[in-house]
Amino acid sequence: MTLLISGGAGFIGPSLIDRAARDGHDAIVIDNLSRGRREHLGAPTLLIKADLAQASSVEHAASALGGRRIDEFWHLAANSDIPAGVEDPSVDLRDTFLTTFHSLLLAERLGVRHFFFASSSAVYGDQGSTRISEELGPLLPISNYGAMKLASEAQISAAAESALGRAGLYRFPNVVGVPATHGVLLDFVRKLKSNPLQLDVLGDGTQQKAYLHVSELVDGMWFASRRQQARREVFNIGPADDGVSVQWIAQQVCARVAPQARIAFGQGKKGWVGDVPRFRYDTARLAALGWRPTLDSSAAIVRAIDEVARQEGV
Amino acid sequence: MTLLISGGAGFIGPSLIDRAARDGHDAIVIDNLSRGRREHLGAPTLLIKADLAQASSVEHAASALGGRRIDEFWHLAANSDIPAGVEDPSVDLRDTFLTTFHSLLLAERLGVRHFFFASSSAVYGDQGSTRISEELGPLLPISNYGAMKLASEAQISAAAESALGRAGLYRFPNVVGVPATHGVLLDFVRKLKSNPLQLDVLGDGTQQKAYLHVSELVDGMWFASRRQQARREVFNIGPADDGVSVQWIAQQVCARVAPQARIAFGQGKKGWVGDVPRFRYDTARLAALGWRPTLDSSAAIVRAIDEVARQEGV
Repeated sequence: MTLLISGGAGFIGPSLIDRAARDGHDAIVIDNLSRGRREHLGAPTLLIKADLAQASSVEHAASALGGRRIDEFWHLAANSDIPAGVEDPSVDLRDTFLTTFHSLLLAERLGVRHFFFASSSAVYGDQGSTRISEELGPLLPISNYGAMKLASEAQISAAAESALGRAGLYRFPNVVGVPATHGVLLDFVRKLKSNPLQLDVLGDGTQQKAYLHVSELVDGMWFASRRQQARREVFNIGPADDGVSVQWIAQQVCARVAPQARIAFGQGKKGWVGDVPRFRYDTARLAALGWRPTLDSSAAIVRAIDEVARQEGV
Repeated sequence: MTLLISGGAGFIGPSLIDRAARDGHDAIVIDNLSRGRREHLGAPTLLIKADLAQASSVEHAASALGGRRIDEFWHLAANSDIPAGVEDPSVDLRDTFLTTFHSLLLAERLGVRHFFFASSSAVYGDQGSTRISEELGPLLPISNYGAMKLASEAQISAAAESALGRAGLYRFPNVVGVPATHGVLLDFVRKLKSNPLQLDVLGDGTQQKAYLHVSELVDGMWFASRRQQARREVFNIGPADDGVSVQWIAQQVCARVAPQARIAFGQGKKGWVGDVPRFRYDTARLAALGWRPTLDSSAAIVRAIDEVARQEGV
């Protein structure tokens, strides 16, 4: 079987390719190489350089594939910089929403019937202390990042009525691991590399979130996708715990990278406008099917800190 | 107070302008006049001709307004032809999604803090016999029409976190009345006008839907918007009944317009791909605030048939 993976040279793609390869499947990657890198991919993986935000990419990618049969489309391409999308709504419009629109056109063009999407817990918005299950509504995202993930889900759901046979929508919280291209761990490690004596943290450090290791995320998505029965399925994928605080993460990064650093916190509960300060995630649906992560949030963070530190040469 | 109404020269706008005028408020309309018409508007209403699907419309509209204070933005502009969007996803992308994107930019540019949106029950998708309340998830639209309405809700929700102070999202089923620019009644009346002996109906006529009269829709939206407390509020607006069948509607239109016509039904439960054959709508939330429509689905249809027939000169 051959997977076509949009944005596959970025953070999640390499782990997904590894997971699929364990079951004997090939992958082809489409990436605009904005944050993705050729060197994230193993030698056998074909890379098509194309920006799916552009309408012309559909024709370009179809032509580069030259009639090769594609069995599944995994759509990972998206903006991953949430604050950038708060500043300028066109970022998520282009890199998350329009990449979905053109990925669906490409899937239809190629006759691909199975489409899987890396969505986000950000589609739920700020639900306070409510435990967030897939059955929760209304969905009121508070960032353009979350809005364009939800908008992408909506497009995919509609396409499943006509061109697609099957759509899997996977909503997950913060993901950590390597190759790190963005996120809190990379940010902290790089700050400490440039100044080992002080770590400046956005917000007051009390924000608490759940974290999933990227290897487990792809394992959970893969598990759900193999067992899909309905035309459309939505799964929360995440650890069962309620997460760890930014303060705790900062302490762990310092302990690994720069034990002498002083941690300086900012003001307020949120790191930025559109940041969900705290949420409680319900992952019972996937657990009932038989899958749950082996690492909780703290174990995922500790493992990823070491991986990111080594990636950054510290 | 002055309302700025996108798509206001179409079907819903004239009734909204009437409703606001009853409370002493003015309206300014932005419309691309694709289905909207200047003659739908009373003489005092300023009309800015602009296509909000285009980025350039933001500057054009802001300049045409010349610094005039706008208190509320009512975003009605959208594609209203559901089958057209099934054939070509770019229709809803352009006329529903991108008009929302640029309406939000325009609202921000004008410093408008209150934004109200004509969403749709189509955001829920096909929920079978489940009674559909605002708390229902996941939202899995089955048409591009519903997808781009949901995608628009998502954008507005995110904007409410930063630029906007208040966002009201109103989800309603089929709406009937005048000026009719689209919909089943106009379709049937026009067909019977051209052939009074036969009425061809898409689908087997058993599709059952709830209908709301446009005068009551705007009354319900207006009521909800005046009482809004939270930053974001979502309301189902519709009759309390489970609707009437297409067969019954066809019979009523024939009785009014061409009593001698034979009704010829098609095959299948759905009129087209992406049509939700039947749904049960929960409107308890708005009823608890004190508003419910005075006409049920059948009364709304009977009243609207007469209005549409007179509009079409029969």
